[in-house]
Amino acid sequence: MIIIMKQEATEAEVAEVVREVEQTGFRPFINPGVERKVIALLGEVDIDKVQLVDHFSVLDGVERVQLISEPYKLASRHTHPEPLKITLGLQPDAERVTIGGTELVVMAGPCSVESEAQIVGTARAVKAAGATLLRGGAFKPRSSPHSFQGLGLEGLKLLAAARAATGLPVVTEIMDPHDLDVVCRYADVLQIGARNMQNFSLLRYVGETRHPVLLKRGPGAKIADFLLAAEYVLNGGNLQVMLCERGIITFENATRYTTDINAVPVLKKQTHLPVVIDPSHATGDAEYVPSVAMAGIAAGADGLIIEVHPDPAAALSDGKQSLRPVRFATLMDQLRRLAPVVNRTLADGCTQ
Amino acid sequence: MIIIMKQEATEAEVAEVVREVEQTGFRPFINPGVERKVIALLGEVDIDKVQLVDHFSVLDGVERVQLISEPYKLASRHTHPEPLKITLGLQPDAERVTIGGTELVVMAGPCSVESEAQIVGTARAVKAAGATLLRGGAFKPRSSPHSFQGLGLEGLKLLAAARAATGLPVVTEIMDPHDLDVVCRYADVLQIGARNMQNFSLLRYVGETRHPVLLKRGPGAKIADFLLAAEYVLNGGNLQVMLCERGIITFENATRYTTDINAVPVLKKQTHLPVVIDPSHATGDAEYVPSVAMAGIAAGADGLIIEVHPDPAAALSDGKQSLRPVRFATLMDQLRRLAPVVNRTLADGCTQ
Amino acid sequence: MIIIMKQEATEAEVAEVVREVEQTGFRPFINPGVERKVIALLGEVDIDKVQLVDHFSVLDGVERVQLISEPYKLASRHTHPEPLKITLGLQPDAERVTIGGTELVVMAGPCSVESEAQIVGTARAVKAAGATLLRGGAFKPRSSPHSFQGLGLEGLKLLAAARAATGLPVVTEIMDPHDLDVVCRYADVLQIGARNMQNFSLLRYVGETRHPVLLKRGPGAKIADFLLAAEYVLNGGNLQVMLCERGIITFENATRYTTDINAVPVLKKQTHLPVVIDPSHATGDAEYVPSVAMAGIAAGADGLIIEVHPDPAAALSDGKQSLRPVRFATLMDQLRRLAPVVNRTLADGCTQ
Amino acid sequence: MIIIMKQEATEAEVAEVVREVEQTGFRPFINPGVERKVIALLGEVDIDKVQLVDHFSVLDGVERVQLISEPYKLASRHTHPEPLKITLGLQPDAERVTIGGTELVVMAGPCSVESEAQIVGTARAVKAAGATLLRGGAFKPRSSPHSFQGLGLEGLKLLAAARAATGLPVVTEIMDPHDLDVVCRYADVLQIGARNMQNFSLLRYVGETRHPVLLKRGPGAKIADFLLAAEYVLNGGNLQVMLCERGIITFENATRYTTDINAVPVLKKQTHLPVVIDPSHATGDAEYVPSVAMAGIAAGADGLIIEVHPDPAAALSDGKQSLRPVRFATLMDQLRRLAPVVNRTLADGCTQ
Repeated sequence: MIIIMKQEATEAEVAEVVREVEQTGFRPFINPGVERKVIALLGEVDIDKVQLVDHFSVLDGVERVQLISEPYKLASRHTHPEPLKITLGLQPDAERVTIGGTELVVMAGPCSVESEAQIVGTARAVKAAGATLLRGGAFKPRSSPHSFQGLGLEGLKLLAAARAATGLPVVTEIMDPHDLDVVCRYADVLQIGARNMQNFSLLRYVGETRHPVLLKRGPGAKIADFLLAAEYVLNGGNLQVMLCERGIITFENATRYTTDINAVPVLKKQTHLPVVIDPSHATGDAEYVPSVAMAGIAAGADGLIIEVHPDPAAALSDGKQSLRPVRFATLMDQLRRLAPVVNRTLADGCTQ
Repeated sequence: MIIIMKQEATEAEVAEVVREVEQTGFRPFINPGVERKVIALLGEVDIDKVQLVDHFSVLDGVERVQLISEPYKLASRHTHPEPLKITLGLQPDAERVTIGGTELVVMAGPCSVESEAQIVGTARAVKAAGATLLRGGAFKPRSSPHSFQGLGLEGLKLLAAARAATGLPVVTEIMDPHDLDVVCRYADVLQIGARNMQNFSLLRYVGETRHPVLLKRGPGAKIADFLLAAEYVLNGGNLQVMLCERGIITFENATRYTTDINAVPVLKKQTHLPVVIDPSHATGDAEYVPSVAMAGIAAGADGLIIEVHPDPAAALSDGKQSLRPVRFATLMDQLRRLAPVVNRTLADGCTQ
Repeated sequence: MIIIMKQEATEAEVAEVVREVEQTGFRPFINPGVERKVIALLGEVDIDKVQLVDHFSVLDGVERVQLISEPYKLASRHTHPEPLKITLGLQPDAERVTIGGTELVVMAGPCSVESEAQIVGTARAVKAAGATLLRGGAFKPRSSPHSFQGLGLEGLKLLAAARAATGLPVVTEIMDPHDLDVVCRYADVLQIGARNMQNFSLLRYVGETRHPVLLKRGPGAKIADFLLAAEYVLNGGNLQVMLCERGIITFENATRYTTDINAVPVLKKQTHLPVVIDPSHATGDAEYVPSVAMAGIAAGADGLIIEVHPDPAAALSDGKQSLRPVRFATLMDQLRRLAPVVNRTLADGCTQ
Repeated sequence: MIIIMKQEATEAEVAEVVREVEQTGFRPFINPGVERKVIALLGEVDIDKVQLVDHFSVLDGVERVQLISEPYKLASRHTHPEPLKITLGLQPDAERVTIGGTELVVMAGPCSVESEAQIVGTARAVKAAGATLLRGGAFKPRSSPHSFQGLGLEGLKLLAAARAATGLPVVTEIMDPHDLDVVCRYADVLQIGARNMQNFSLLRYVGETRHPVLLKRGPGAKIADFLLAAEYVLNGGNLQVMLCERGIITFENATRYTTDINAVPVLKKQTHLPVVIDPSHATGDAEYVPSVAMAGIAAGADGLIIEVHPDPAAALSDGKQSLRPVRFATLMDQLRRLAPVVNRTLADGCTQ
């Protein structure tokens, strides 16, 4: 249930409604920064909902009360009718980038951080092509315990060095709650990987931070589960969540996963959170990445996250799906021509 | 196995290679209209392939012999390296349209033909918006035997009337081999529905005609199976097959099917046959159709097939996924702006 | 909607209700051979259902009127509360076998009929082990047009020879409506293959015969679609349909398909039609067939259809999933011990 | 790669081989308690494997060296040819139960621990019916943050009370690494939930304990990924892992998940680890649980985990899929009759 206040409701009226909500046993939640206040009722209370609607409807300052069927309240567009804009780049040496508005945001970089030369070089290259965030894994969730597991803290430091060199804010994955402090110290955006999308403990810990979060969809997760996972982070008070479609698991084996392109308009309808497409994991093949990147933006996504590696054949992980910098730059040119067709802009690359 | 002849190979040399192929027990197949001849060896013969490669490699006029792993030979881009262009509109009163080249082809119309007013009116509206083919079902494959099954022959006649009124070539579904003659008499393009994608008898019958075919992917069919289904039609000598991605069946239930957007670049790599996207069936919801239509073209598809109905709420089938003509026209405008970004053009609508 | 008559309703009362139903525009359907008459209303009529319930409820002889939500009426257990028993073996030289009662029915034989020695030898072997039907394909639906397509009419004759030699009724696939007469002449049971499960034309033709039908589930078909496909056959007046679960298509690739074992209790709840499991296609690997065959019967299936080949390595199709006769006999012994645990019996093998 | 020692190899010979392995950079691993020693080479080393096989093959005491293709080495049946038996019940007041041998192990209890009366009462009831472990969630992974999240520590204490009252060892889920110590203090078996199957941090922490682990398959995880997840636990030195099939996510929506019954024989072939079926989550409906439980054991599983609740309608979670104690007892009787058919035994219930 959500209570939509009148545009002109006073603070006192809002406070009174909040008090009434608390008395029912529900937890009231108000989305900050929204002009018209909407109060969501959180929790499970065994109470007659219809009677409750009547009760709240007559309070001063209330425009209307709406029963919403989605189990996610905070992630619902009903609670937050306007698309959310998130400013990325909270580390002092990072440039500021806004996702969710007119500007398309492209995050690019290698799957794993491997060396200073590799990450700084890639950062320079993707920035030159117009990327505005740097991606790179320091802690890697690998299917096999016998595979390369990332450089850990050393990787985080190299990412920071790349940021210092280019100004690009850094998005990197957090896997273990014990690493949360150290990752927050170096990262601008916390990535929750697809395999941890329903690691509810981790979601809760991340929800207690105030770092923007890039939440990747689990390959076996329905959109409704995806939004409920976001709800865990939002529920902790961290309201800056981006949703990343990175392919779902289906019977088709010509590609590694199946990009759920339908998810773009569905998410845009259901939630105010920005939507990012990861064509690299969603296809598993660099050859198909440009087509799917174009499709994602044409469908309405707010951004892309793309794997770029200076020497894909030598990459320690996911080389097959990484673009070379030159191919990435060509794709960025095409995206730049696409942007105005969907009423967006894309940052220019710097002169090389 | 395919035998690639030299550019300058003589007809006699080609004929000699064909003779040699026949002696091995394989059936030779030469794709017509291709500058450089490529001879595919069809059938299953228990013979040492490596030895055979050596044998053919030294024949006069042979450039090289290649073992290809795909079970589909005729649908393979190895056999036919250039994208295929198909001219649509074989009925006398139809305009001619080419798919597979620069021009994007948009097929539009109602799910089912319901009345003369409905089909002729819709035809005029979609033509005005820039569509170049008319779709409409006369024989309908409905999941339940108790649902509306289409107008049959009467529906075909109404489609012909709509073509006469607008010049739009007509694509309509063939379900029963017994109806093949009558459908061929009225249709410009034969549609094989998703549920009949592996109805091999029907594929064979259609392969014996010379009507262009729009083959829809079965919702549970892998891309490899899709291409093998096309192979059945090609194998009958009917080389004009278009492939239509219309959504696959997955665990996601926010939309009726999941559009396999990855399939676009995969098909473009594997085959020379034109690729069409059906966002109406792939989403099942008119609200999501424009996004997915845009995505399909951005990904590289050659065309679209879209359900348009003057009054979706009153449609006898699939109303929920049909666009109103005015929404269709807006989408066409956006597609027209997208086309040059992917080096395509889209027909202007006529002045209304 | 279904109208359940009183146990003691007279024929005149039933006839009167039928007449009333006809006047509404619905088509009445009465399941024959059921003690208590149940009249189903078929078709789509735009009428107030609740009012109709009231209208029929007060007619003489009516026990109660029930709105049923399933789109399949004839296949629904509401319409036919008792499990259906079907007698198989309608050719003069066939033994009679009943499926749907206490006795488990095992259909066994090769994927394709290849030669007289192969099919007659296999028939003798599977009969000796306790099988009571012979399976074998004469017309084969192969994914590739370049693969072995079956012996056709010659294959049917060999199946008849195997029946003559052993008394085993024959189940074989019908693919093309043009072959219907000839297949009916030789077969005891018509098989509709998984790829034709939604070939509605074929379903209608088969619905007009009075041959028992083994309808295989399409690998991409939901249970609801499976029952609607059966509804097409039932709707033609052919009420003897067996449902065969043969694996669905999923992301798991350790086996060819995923046996939907849940489907057994679901189907047993939803429909009165007998349920058969095909562990050969559902796993694609002879090594896993016995486990899944056991599971199917333990879950409550009425029968099995299993591929058996005297020399799997030399089979022209599906050798990998075929059991050798000796392995089949061991499985039958284990099934014989399982049968009483689920209150069933399994035919003894004859002495060899 | 694995090195299989001769039956009569001396300890010195084994030690010498281990030393040689270490010099290559691989980490040697010897499965304890196996009569014939098998040494697995773990890690990724860039070295010529074929040369290595030759090198090790001639060492004293080596029977043969085998390259194995599976990425999981410790979970592979190649490394551990005999089925693994695990003794459950490490808390002082727990009875000892062995899984992986002749005896079938049935774990039963409510989804969530709700109160002392509920958990102790259920424990007595399931023990009376023949269950030998008690299941119950104290920390619950719920899709929504607004749903009941379990009693936490209080729940663990109630589980311990139920164990004290009945002797049943307790299996309960661990979600947060921070809770590991406390869960280990109370639980006999650590459950890793389906949503955490690829929470590699958690797998590593659990791998460092010596508590037996029940690892549930992720609904979107292939069998190969499932075994790699087990590999993470084994790699930490915790060799007592049970694998639990609990349904995969597919397009079928008649049940909550699709039980992958094929997985039973596949896992039995690929690994030595015991296999448990969870028919409650795999179907989501108590009505279908008995059929699927029977199927699982008939297919070859070593045990079952079943939700039982004294009053399903009042359960705080998953009530729909919970059996009442009386239905559970009936199922246990049927399983007791099934056990000898698959050469197993099932504990008698105690007299009530």
